[in-house]
Amino acid sequence: MEQETLNVKGMSCGHCVSAVEGNVGEMKGVSDVKVNLDQGTVQVTFDKSDVTHEAIVDIIEDQGYDVE
Amino acid sequence: MEQETLNVKGMSCGHCVSAVEGNVGEMKGVSDVKVNLDQGTVQVTFDKSDVTHEAIVDIIEDQGYDVE
Repeated sequence: MEQETLNVKGMSCGHCVSAVEGNVGEMKGVSDVKVNLDQGTVQVTFDKSDVTHEAIVDIIEDQGYDVE
Repeated sequence: MEQETLNVKGMSCGHCVSAVEGNVGEMKGVSDVKVNLDQGTVQVTFDKSDVTHEAIVDIIEDQGYDVE
């Protein structure tokens, strides 16, 4: 298991938390995802053999947020 | 038809726009609702014989926003 903390811009409210946690959480290989709104971070725990960093970033950016 | 512009605090993103426009728009007697995120306003057109100002405020506050 890999754990990564991404800096994500544009998340502003509980709906954003749900959108990011919901979409990332549904990815195969992701075992945990936590958004911290105040810090603008998304902490993801995932299995590198099932999902890549790039795929996770893509899903978040597809929701309209910027991953730095 | 009555038209009112409410000042609403806490709307921050497209999800908030959808939540407010969706819920207010579904009320009997409301014919139009437009959120302006930058200005923090909700413009509602409604029929006073079907729906009250108070009921509209309640629906918005139920979504977690403050009507001033």
